Amino acid sequence: MIKVVILGSGNVGTHLFKAFKNNSKFEIKQWYSRNLKDISQYSDFVKITDQLDQLEFADMYVLAVNDDSIHDLSTQLSFTNRFVCHTSGSKPIDVIDLKNRSGVFYPLQTFSKESEIDFSKIPICIESSNDEDMITLKNVSKALGCSYHEIDSNQREKLHLAAVFVNNFTNHMYTIAKEITDKSKIDFNILKPLISETVNKIYKLDPKVAQTGPAIRGDNKTINKHLLVLKSKKHKELYELITYLINNLEHEEL
Amino acid sequence: MIKVVILGSGNVGTHLFKAFKNNSKFEIKQWYSRNLKDISQYSDFVKITDQLDQLEFADMYVLAVNDDSIHDLSTQLSFTNRFVCHTSGSKPIDVIDLKNRSGVFYPLQTFSKESEIDFSKIPICIESSNDEDMITLKNVSKALGCSYHEIDSNQREKLHLAAVFVNNFTNHMYTIAKEITDKSKIDFNILKPLISETVNKIYKLDPKVAQTGPAIRGDNKTINKHLLVLKSKKHKELYELITYLINNLEHEEL
Repeated sequence: MIKVVILGSGNVGTHLFKAFKNNSKFEIKQWYSRNLKDISQYSDFVKITDQLDQLEFADMYVLAVNDDSIHDLSTQLSFTNRFVCHTSGSKPIDVIDLKNRSGVFYPLQTFSKESEIDFSKIPICIESSNDEDMITLKNVSKALGCSYHEIDSNQREKLHLAAVFVNNFTNHMYTIAKEITDKSKIDFNILKPLISETVNKIYKLDPKVAQTGPAIRGDNKTINKHLLVLKSKKHKELYELITYLINNLEHEEL
Repeated sequence: MIKVVILGSGNVGTHLFKAFKNNSKFEIKQWYSRNLKDISQYSDFVKITDQLDQLEFADMYVLAVNDDSIHDLSTQLSFTNRFVCHTSGSKPIDVIDLKNRSGVFYPLQTFSKESEIDFSKIPICIESSNDEDMITLKNVSKALGCSYHEIDSNQREKLHLAAVFVNNFTNHMYTIAKEITDKSKIDFNILKPLISETVNKIYKLDPKVAQTGPAIRGDNKTINKHLLVLKSKKHKELYELITYLINNLEHEEL
């Protein structure tokens, strides 16, 4: 059994708790939260604590806390030379205090407390400061049924940026579309099959090849009509910018 | 049986042909294309023609041609007072010459010749110049197993714009993300579960509520780091603009 201690009671911490708890390959030694009441509802299923100096021994300590709290929390740990990971996409491995062995266990997914998620479908990006701990990270991923990918801190920063485009920015495109349909008393649900098919296509085609629409066709009549329909200056600007980019692929020198 | 004539051999025409052909409720009287060779491979299954003056009687003539060809084609029809529809999202009903009864049968989906599509999952936006033809449009939709929605020309223009956001622009977000991962030698496939979950969420939550990420959190540290990572000026501009919009929802007066 892999012994773990979870630190943090946010979305990632809570989803990790559930994934570990329902899996006989793991023993959750403790769940730490600064605010004990955030996790007190789980006290029948796991030892909970708000005392950093009372953490028990584990094979892996998972710091599932806000990006800006990772470093501080890692300095406050009272033990040394144990394996301490964070779960952040945007922080490098070296934010973890050097008194312990450091690692990253970054589940590349969007979590919300309201919706359950099949953890086994999440790709895990892993990194460690030494080879032995990498084996632990692979074993943890395998035990959860997850695919894992060795991604270093530099790559992870790029991946996190790419994730912002495919998740946060895409979601905002849905927000704008819903505003447009709401205002015209059109049911937003009519768009959902199209939204789903847009995603299905990239499982088969490179997104560059899958591109359709007035921008890639150079259909200026439709483009100009759309720009007239949009009333918000910023939305016009956005429409023009993406239309430009679809026709003039920018190349990132990363 | 509903008698139809299809005009046009593009993606929509071809997918419509297949949907009608595999359905015993329809009789395809003819399939017209200006370039007969484009549809000659189907000549064993349907009467094909390139002669507009030889079109047979049908309950519905479907003009599945480019937006800019709809009007001209409708004027070239040699009959009058029959039911003629176009399939365009962005053209009003009145581009169809008034010598015939006009309608719109707009399947709100992205089509490509390479990939098969389950027609019954496509919402159909319908409009007609008289009530009796509306019944035909509903019957055609029902016979195909599709949901249908009465959407007038003004609403359809808005819906088409919204479709550009959820399909074309979203797909371009995937293109940028793939460029970022390719350049850092990261497998783009790692992002696909996140892409799928982004869509799953809007089946449960309003996109405004589903919004996550550094922009909505006001996490300027991460935002500035991402802006440093992006090398293309236009990509920086896009990142800043969408980040602004996520925090300052623009309201369209439509």
